[in-house]
Amino acid sequence: MAVTLSSVADVCALARRASRTLAQTDTATKNAALQAIATALRARTEEILAANELDLIAGREADIGAALLDRLALDEARIESIARAVEAIAALGDPVGETIDGHRLPNGMDVRKVRVPLGVIAVVYEARPNVTIDAAALCLKSGNAIVLRGSSSAANSNAVLCSIAAHAAAGAGLPDGSIGLVAGGGRSELAELATQDDTIDLLIPRGGENLKAALKDVASVPVIYAASGNCHVYVDASAEIEQALAIVLNAKTQRPGVCNAAETLLVHESLVSSFLPEALKRLSAAGVQLRVDESTARLADEVGVQVQAALPEDWDTEYLAMTLAVALVEDTERAIEHIARHGSGHSEAILTKDTGSARAFQLGVDAACVYVNASTRFTDGGEFGMGAEIGNSTQKLHARGPIGLRELCTFKYLIEGDGHVRL
Amino acid sequence: MAVTLSSVADVCALARRASRTLAQTDTATKNAALQAIATALRARTEEILAANELDLIAGREADIGAALLDRLALDEARIESIARAVEAIAALGDPVGETIDGHRLPNGMDVRKVRVPLGVIAVVYEARPNVTIDAAALCLKSGNAIVLRGSSSAANSNAVLCSIAAHAAAGAGLPDGSIGLVAGGGRSELAELATQDDTIDLLIPRGGENLKAALKDVASVPVIYAASGNCHVYVDASAEIEQALAIVLNAKTQRPGVCNAAETLLVHESLVSSFLPEALKRLSAAGVQLRVDESTARLADEVGVQVQAALPEDWDTEYLAMTLAVALVEDTERAIEHIARHGSGHSEAILTKDTGSARAFQLGVDAACVYVNASTRFTDGGEFGMGAEIGNSTQKLHARGPIGLRELCTFKYLIEGDGHVRL
Repeated sequence: MAVTLSSVADVCALARRASRTLAQTDTATKNAALQAIATALRARTEEILAANELDLIAGREADIGAALLDRLALDEARIESIARAVEAIAALGDPVGETIDGHRLPNGMDVRKVRVPLGVIAVVYEARPNVTIDAAALCLKSGNAIVLRGSSSAANSNAVLCSIAAHAAAGAGLPDGSIGLVAGGGRSELAELATQDDTIDLLIPRGGENLKAALKDVASVPVIYAASGNCHVYVDASAEIEQALAIVLNAKTQRPGVCNAAETLLVHESLVSSFLPEALKRLSAAGVQLRVDESTARLADEVGVQVQAALPEDWDTEYLAMTLAVALVEDTERAIEHIARHGSGHSEAILTKDTGSARAFQLGVDAACVYVNASTRFTDGGEFGMGAEIGNSTQKLHARGPIGLRELCTFKYLIEGDGHVRL
Repeated sequence: MAVTLSSVADVCALARRASRTLAQTDTATKNAALQAIATALRARTEEILAANELDLIAGREADIGAALLDRLALDEARIESIARAVEAIAALGDPVGETIDGHRLPNGMDVRKVRVPLGVIAVVYEARPNVTIDAAALCLKSGNAIVLRGSSSAANSNAVLCSIAAHAAAGAGLPDGSIGLVAGGGRSELAELATQDDTIDLLIPRGGENLKAALKDVASVPVIYAASGNCHVYVDASAEIEQALAIVLNAKTQRPGVCNAAETLLVHESLVSSFLPEALKRLSAAGVQLRVDESTARLADEVGVQVQAALPEDWDTEYLAMTLAVALVEDTERAIEHIARHGSGHSEAILTKDTGSARAFQLGVDAACVYVNASTRFTDGGEFGMGAEIGNSTQKLHARGPIGLRELCTFKYLIEGDGHVRL
């Protein structure tokens, strides 16, 4: 595990060197390396569990809490599922070398815009050790070297996982340094990593708002911040009621702790008797806490559903929990306005039978994903057919929405002439 | 000219509001606005020249130098050419609404990835007043609002140009605030503009290294830095000699002051007698100062061409002048190595008849544009058929190479279902 003993700059420099070879490594070799990683993970499960046990013991001693311990814990089934995820990434198409665009210029030169790897991608992440392998597999498949920096609470698990993956990859012909691990989960290592401008092409943080804030202060390398999602479902006057009820329930409750879950329900005011009472009842029965505007509060009272009055900050809150803000709006335009003011540009849905409303919403809402008659929960690289994702972006440059293999690439223009000079 | 009297934040907020309408404005309306701007520029030429004269007088008093005065100066011909450039941008295809990708998911939902404007683009620039109109036209055509911040030396010219364009655009139906001008060319206005995270989606600096350095220190909004180009031409063993001579001369001398001009010539060592002497003679005769490695110096001495010994920093220098560094290399791999170490990732060319060398160079060189048997001088949005460009990017995220209309856009995913929920 020599990689974990090197300095941040050394790990990054080695990754930079590896990246030049990796960028030209053919798909078959990359896939063989991914398969070798999956095989090694299965073969060395005992070793991984032993290292993980050390982290769990330390975690219990440090009293990090049951939720964090669960995220940290590995078992045979989880390792098997990590190995399968690597095989699934191996099975995806290779984005490298895809011709994005191309044409012949009037002077006869041919220009092709071709996808190429970014180079070196740094991924900083919190407790879950599975990210180590997941992120490494995505980066290798897209021809990039990866530098990982996990949290100190998973240090033993990450070191073993990274070492296993690095050895398997090297054994399958990938260059040394293709997978690097920065030792130490401290802020100083984070700052050092985030300022390696000469070697890091992109840094992706996978963690909470604290991690993002820490990076914003120090990072000089390009960063794509994973999204926070204050997602809305707007139920338009013409919505099909049963469909709308099902979608709202799904968007809020199917998995409330993730960024594409709905946090605010906007309801056209004409639906106060046809849709809203039933929605409040079903949401409440499903265990959702409701934070509602004044009109909705009156209605809830009438139909005997317990609610709380929404505070102004509720409209801006990503609960990531079984809580939903609810407001009535006059029309689609007001719904769009509300979303423009409070949304985070992640995933927004309109439920409607009206083509005019659907079109106005899709044109007017400025977000990565704009849905008509579907749940916001579909915003996901896997669901979108991208195979896998390393995160979700709400920024507008480079990657917006799911960050899959293609988004881990850049492109270059290849121009071929026959003695062409500019006049 | 009320726009120029508002605070930076006010100009940006107004632009943000305008951007929501602009994003949905159809192509015909945008084109009519651009035509109105061109017409107004011609009709109000006297007014523009009078304002420009004030800047020129101030410039002469402040002794800003002949080069800067020339860049600052407008005349009827220059205004006509600015107006024509606007008409040329109106004639380009509209990038907004283009479907980039799309497919039906296994569950029946349709996903489309559609190009949309970024929103508000800030452009900060130095003396040339023509940038005011050029940048505004590109941003409007791509559905973005623009906030301009020019230099104080062109304050009067920029204010009049901006006012004329803003009035013409508003008269043609574009929303107020589509074109905003930040008054004052000071560093505090720059810092204020570069930190308007809530309103500015992208900031593009068009200026020298000082401007970039000033921005790097303060900018919190996304910035695409225009490129510096330390471009190389590598003449391979198998190059066709006359073709190579013509391309090298073109790449260095056709317009030495721009970022896609060649700064270093790399020559395969087998060409010491067939190509290099003639190249040195022709370059020298064309007025190019040569900074050469030891072997080349010996050869130059033999053939009577005056050269200087290259210093280590010469390999990293973007001369932007009639100066060229020259080195012999052992093979294509060494040429690629040299470029990896010293290049700025802008434009690199190999001149060769050998398919293996051509392929190795195109795969191995990490740059925005990699040429085979053509001059680096073609890296340009106009030459590439993108119609126009607002600059050239050497960064890898979002835009690499010429920044045209499409690069001033982002995209969103539009998803259509029929009651789809995630299982």
